[in-house]
Amino acid sequence: MSDNNLNNQQKNSRNTSMDVARLVGVSQATVSRAFDPSSKMKPTTREKVLNAALSLNYTPDAIARSLISNNTNIIAVIMQNTTNPFYAKVLTKLSIQLRKFGKQILYFYLDNPDNLQQMITQVLQYRVDGILITSINLSSTIADTCLNFGIPVVLFNRQINSSKIQSVCCDNFQAGRDCADYFVMKGHRRLAFIGGFDTASTTLKRKEGFLSRLRERGITDVTIYHSDYTYEAGISAFHHLVKEQDLLPDAIFCISDLVCAGVIDCIRHNYHLSIPDDIAVIGFDDIDLASYQSYDITSFSQPIDDMISYTCELLMSPEKYSQESNLTLFPCTLITRTTA
Amino acid sequence: MSDNNLNNQQKNSRNTSMDVARLVGVSQATVSRAFDPSSKMKPTTREKVLNAALSLNYTPDAIARSLISNNTNIIAVIMQNTTNPFYAKVLTKLSIQLRKFGKQILYFYLDNPDNLQQMITQVLQYRVDGILITSINLSSTIADTCLNFGIPVVLFNRQINSSKIQSVCCDNFQAGRDCADYFVMKGHRRLAFIGGFDTASTTLKRKEGFLSRLRERGITDVTIYHSDYTYEAGISAFHHLVKEQDLLPDAIFCISDLVCAGVIDCIRHNYHLSIPDDIAVIGFDDIDLASYQSYDITSFSQPIDDMISYTCELLMSPEKYSQESNLTLFPCTLITRTTA
Repeated sequence: MSDNNLNNQQKNSRNTSMDVARLVGVSQATVSRAFDPSSKMKPTTREKVLNAALSLNYTPDAIARSLISNNTNIIAVIMQNTTNPFYAKVLTKLSIQLRKFGKQILYFYLDNPDNLQQMITQVLQYRVDGILITSINLSSTIADTCLNFGIPVVLFNRQINSSKIQSVCCDNFQAGRDCADYFVMKGHRRLAFIGGFDTASTTLKRKEGFLSRLRERGITDVTIYHSDYTYEAGISAFHHLVKEQDLLPDAIFCISDLVCAGVIDCIRHNYHLSIPDDIAVIGFDDIDLASYQSYDITSFSQPIDDMISYTCELLMSPEKYSQESNLTLFPCTLITRTTA
Repeated sequence: MSDNNLNNQQKNSRNTSMDVARLVGVSQATVSRAFDPSSKMKPTTREKVLNAALSLNYTPDAIARSLISNNTNIIAVIMQNTTNPFYAKVLTKLSIQLRKFGKQILYFYLDNPDNLQQMITQVLQYRVDGILITSINLSSTIADTCLNFGIPVVLFNRQINSSKIQSVCCDNFQAGRDCADYFVMKGHRRLAFIGGFDTASTTLKRKEGFLSRLRERGITDVTIYHSDYTYEAGISAFHHLVKEQDLLPDAIFCISDLVCAGVIDCIRHNYHLSIPDDIAVIGFDDIDLASYQSYDITSFSQPIDDMISYTCELLMSPEKYSQESNLTLFPCTLITRTTA
């Protein structure tokens, strides 16, 4: 297949929906509806129409249609930190939900936070219907730029104070408090918190909740360490605690399950201590790994399905977007396993 | 911000690239180039132009432009089995590579293989410049449909026999042979292969290579078991081996690191056997988990960067697409750790 062949085939393939309707013996409206996943019809009819359309090289032209309707049916998703399987799950579930409404995902991986503005300018060129930004600190300047273009933006798992942008998060502050209560209930008194970047709202809120509740319960022996979100970060964080502290903590709250796995391996393999007897640990996100027998991590689970459903509603309804409060928090659940 | 506000803002935002050029004091061509990431220019100039453009609510219209150029700069990516972190890595690296050429990813998650045809019809509506399909068995009917639309399709990590579609894979057959040699060299004589779906080319080729090399070396005591690609599949596969076999294998080749992690946990925690002394195990993909101390899996690594670069070349050059052989294999490397 040469370059010319590719182009010729494309040029020769201009059958219309009328041709498809005639071939199947249905109306033109039925052909249109067959291509719209949100429109209900008999699966066998849909299949017959789609097969006929493909055999005639016909598809509706979403691009041309978008110029008329001012609606591309594309939602841009900007992600960072994709080594955390939590975000693979977010992307998968989001894709399933959006597809039900005939929306597609234009995916952007942000390799360097400094490139965010340039990335947003690319996103805007595609006249997307909405933008979802996960776990990235957004400046209010960039946030306002998107709003000025009339495009709804949802921050997922981050909050921003000075903007009209919608944020969808789990209740990180409350999770921090719950973690404090759980550790204290189990008899722990020398605590540590291993956070991520100290500018990330997830880290700040969980830390705030954890410390405030410990203070209320009269516990002040708390070590704070900021790191990254990876397994390797967990290992070096625990080495750091050992080096800096005369007395090791007896319980550690980790910012992610990956960090927690690093902490666990370092405790067991490098220092030959026992979990939870010597040190208890709690993670966050309840990723698949948390339930693997080698780790079996007690972890906070985010109600990801509810969070994504609500995010989709915000992205698809400008009315809802403008009426609701700018921050929606979803409660986390502590899944207790054997590490705490 | 109400629905009306959104629309009004959009309507009032029709500044042109000439307005931006005037504001910054550069030519219109410079403004165009600032928006094209593949075009080289001084970062400070680019930033100045992009800032000015955003302040004037100007972006080029990629959608309108695509109707003229017959080129959307969109590559569709269809993925399945996204619980395997290998594919998160593929998506991330692909996104970085494509962005260098100003290409974006339209992401489709295939939740049910039966929906592939319907999904392809949606993909085609967006007049994408190319389609990448990972780890999904493609019927030659669907493959030919895409080619008839004049769109290059690359199958990543799967091969298809009866089509002109390009496949980019690692050399699964050779990896199977290498695994056999490694186990035999280590003195193992009772072997097992835990594969994925028995229709997947990855499973078939690795099995074929593994068995053929074992036969050549005079070893016939090989148990085959087909399963899924998950941690849970690994656990149930090992339980199955115990139930069915009088004598357990002394070495197991697993289709993925996730399966291998399940096998390892089952061997250690359910049967209290030692790895590699009682049973050696080898995984595939060399995901991050493989290097975690709790697992430390000997695993085959795929040259993912080379595979993705080549895939991008195929998707972006119709000439290359039509001239090259339909199957390109990349050699795997065995990363030896402590499980074999």
